[in-house]
Amino acid sequence: MGKTKKYCYGLCLLISVAINILFSINLYVGEGQWGEKKHEDSCQPVLSWSEKAAAEAEAVAAISCSGHGRAYVDGLVFEGQPVCECFDCYGGSDCSELSPECFADADSGDPVFLEPFWMQHATESAVVISGWHRMSYRYADYTTMSKELENYIHKIHLLVGNAVTEGRYIVFGIGSTQLLNAAVYALSSNKTSSPSNVLASIPFYPMYKEQTTFFNSESFEFEGDTYSWQSNNSTNNIDVIEFVTSPNNPDGELKKSVLGGKTIYDHAYYWPHFTQITGPSDHDLMIFTLSKLTGHAGTRFGWAVIKDKDIYEKVLNYISIADLGISKDTQLRVLKLLKVAVEGYGKPLFEFAYNTMRERWDRLTSVLSKSTRFSIQKRHPLHCNFFNETRLASPAYAWVKCEREEDDDCGVVLEAGKIIGRAGSIFSAKDRYTRLSLIKSQYDFELLLKRLTELVSHENGSIATM
Amino acid sequence: MGKTKKYCYGLCLLISVAINILFSINLYVGEGQWGEKKHEDSCQPVLSWSEKAAAEAEAVAAISCSGHGRAYVDGLVFEGQPVCECFDCYGGSDCSELSPECFADADSGDPVFLEPFWMQHATESAVVISGWHRMSYRYADYTTMSKELENYIHKIHLLVGNAVTEGRYIVFGIGSTQLLNAAVYALSSNKTSSPSNVLASIPFYPMYKEQTTFFNSESFEFEGDTYSWQSNNSTNNIDVIEFVTSPNNPDGELKKSVLGGKTIYDHAYYWPHFTQITGPSDHDLMIFTLSKLTGHAGTRFGWAVIKDKDIYEKVLNYISIADLGISKDTQLRVLKLLKVAVEGYGKPLFEFAYNTMRERWDRLTSVLSKSTRFSIQKRHPLHCNFFNETRLASPAYAWVKCEREEDDDCGVVLEAGKIIGRAGSIFSAKDRYTRLSLIKSQYDFELLLKRLTELVSHENGSIATM
Repeated sequence: MGKTKKYCYGLCLLISVAINILFSINLYVGEGQWGEKKHEDSCQPVLSWSEKAAAEAEAVAAISCSGHGRAYVDGLVFEGQPVCECFDCYGGSDCSELSPECFADADSGDPVFLEPFWMQHATESAVVISGWHRMSYRYADYTTMSKELENYIHKIHLLVGNAVTEGRYIVFGIGSTQLLNAAVYALSSNKTSSPSNVLASIPFYPMYKEQTTFFNSESFEFEGDTYSWQSNNSTNNIDVIEFVTSPNNPDGELKKSVLGGKTIYDHAYYWPHFTQITGPSDHDLMIFTLSKLTGHAGTRFGWAVIKDKDIYEKVLNYISIADLGISKDTQLRVLKLLKVAVEGYGKPLFEFAYNTMRERWDRLTSVLSKSTRFSIQKRHPLHCNFFNETRLASPAYAWVKCEREEDDDCGVVLEAGKIIGRAGSIFSAKDRYTRLSLIKSQYDFELLLKRLTELVSHENGSIATM
Repeated sequence: MGKTKKYCYGLCLLISVAINILFSINLYVGEGQWGEKKHEDSCQPVLSWSEKAAAEAEAVAAISCSGHGRAYVDGLVFEGQPVCECFDCYGGSDCSELSPECFADADSGDPVFLEPFWMQHATESAVVISGWHRMSYRYADYTTMSKELENYIHKIHLLVGNAVTEGRYIVFGIGSTQLLNAAVYALSSNKTSSPSNVLASIPFYPMYKEQTTFFNSESFEFEGDTYSWQSNNSTNNIDVIEFVTSPNNPDGELKKSVLGGKTIYDHAYYWPHFTQITGPSDHDLMIFTLSKLTGHAGTRFGWAVIKDKDIYEKVLNYISIADLGISKDTQLRVLKLLKVAVEGYGKPLFEFAYNTMRERWDRLTSVLSKSTRFSIQKRHPLHCNFFNETRLASPAYAWVKCEREEDDDCGVVLEAGKIIGRAGSIFSAKDRYTRLSLIKSQYDFELLLKRLTELVSHENGSIATM
């Protein structure tokens, strides 16, 4: 029995010591050294100088503002953190206070409808800019334009099939806005005794006239509506520059040059979510904007696609003299956004965008189909090469017409129904027309539809009240 | 003896079991559960959507390019990563190949001398921009300018004491470049029969003439040198707009208005690292640029400080019509950079910048003091309010004059010594003068000094060879 007890002690001791050894091995292998934790891969501190900025951005993005606003890293600061910037009709420090009777603001072409897409693609679309990123005036090739970004401009056009860019020159601008005027300068006459006549077809985007008039150059004059001018003049010996917006702002119509001479094609809306892509546009001077492609209006980025080298150099010269080239921070950001835009052959972005626009048009036409007081532009089925099917367009704006004879100021009629649009006269058309923006946030659209539904439902009531 | 052995076994077993218990406690406490590692705070995954972009930025920043170049996130891509963009005189895929006979390029006012400061302040100066950052055309207050950034513009001026901004209006532009022309438009005559005469004192920054001529408005004309114009004209009934650059580009002189009428003060260089701050500038229209304050020329950001409301609205209108406001990505980045600039009462930034410039001037004057062939502008001690001492200025450029009668084209002389400068005639002065940039990288400056030293050392040799 004593021997058994001794064997038990011995065996237990052996087992216990073996366990000691196992624990020790586990401790040594599981830690870098004795007493120091070894980090697994997911624990590795992987970031250094960028971590603080990244954490700050994420913390600010996580501020919910009751779901009715946004906080931004560069917002005004209150009690140590950026304030909530509330959506229309909401207020209070956390945007929780609704003003139920507020107006539906459908005035601006602010393309915020794409914001949800970018929030869903947060990882791929984030960009980190170091404090020393591209401090120089110029890129390595001595230009003020990013070659890599240029490559992606070519890519997106090839993918969408909406413009011929091969062998063409590209110039970047602060939005397409800046390039519109650059194009006018580039195309305009050298003879100050006979300045170029700048024209656009009513209804047209007012900036063409505003800019041309404002810059007040000896080389050009804004002369109004193309058709009217054509009726009264011959282009023989008269220098003309024609703006053609296709699809048009405000009515979404696909348009061509009337005069067939020097033409600036404004293709801001020539993307599959607004209109059918009938083929790659192949004109001498075409202008596009990021605002209506990805929705980043605040970034201020546009580009011109130019055939003729001489015109290209003039447009480039304009940008150089106006501002020594556009921000390199902007160009980096745009590159990031376009990399996301071209993923999956563009389908994720354009399907999201198109589905949003299509649903809005379906719901809008449904509401207005019940109206005899208001009409909107007709849409006709056309084949879209990008989506490879015949479909209706889904323009950025509804071009609303007040049909009753006494409603010659449609804006007033809509305003009485708590809707703010943009008057037809802004587009050199009659105020019987009003433009309503369909590209703002989902919240804005829902409110617009609510107000329109209310208005339409009152149509069979008293005419005098409205 | 047997009893002792039994006690030994017992004691050893007890000790061994106790150790096992300790190991077990350590394992349980040190891990969340049995077998699962518990993460220490430094291991906590703290980032989500921004991590990938942050890691990418850091990886690219870590590409050394042999210390003779930079890789950027938006650089052209080769074999999956951005290429090295080499400093002047270096080449090869890793920028390790030196061209020993290459020229010292001192032509451009590219303010890369501040890059090391920003690399040293990597954490505070990094910025992360989410994919949905400020997509709208407008800020919450419906303007196109960040209020928080405006606050920091006021802060930096208050801190440096170089401009009165309280109660003044601020307008942002794409670099000061854009604001120069905006100011001309804002100040110019409404009567096209008598356009405003735009003037600047030789030697002057060529952009004033280039822009005014290029935009070719009916409202203004560039009429040349202020002094010459003054000799031949009276300002009675003639509308004039005078550019005053102080400190001047190219010669660094502190200047005042000659005519005392409508004046645009270009204060691009009125910072303590270039000149003494003699007091806060208090003029009706003053223009500044980020390029020469923080070195971020590529960002394209400038601002105007305006007294008169009417002029302010005209400048704002210009920006609005030219491009619907400047990029919000740029404004966010600038805010980040200015937050760093104002830290420590601005001392870290301005001491770094000034010490760099002072050392360069000390070394330059030392080299050129041995020369009778080349002279540079005289500098006079003045009290600097910011650094609170009397000191010499350290201008951004050396305004070199070739003293020998036969050297009427100083550029040619310097070029023979493998130095590229900017000809005096670019500044409407004689080509006997050349501007040499002293604000490029340390590498560029060392090469410039080397070439100058070689040139000066040859002065006592054959005149015919040079």
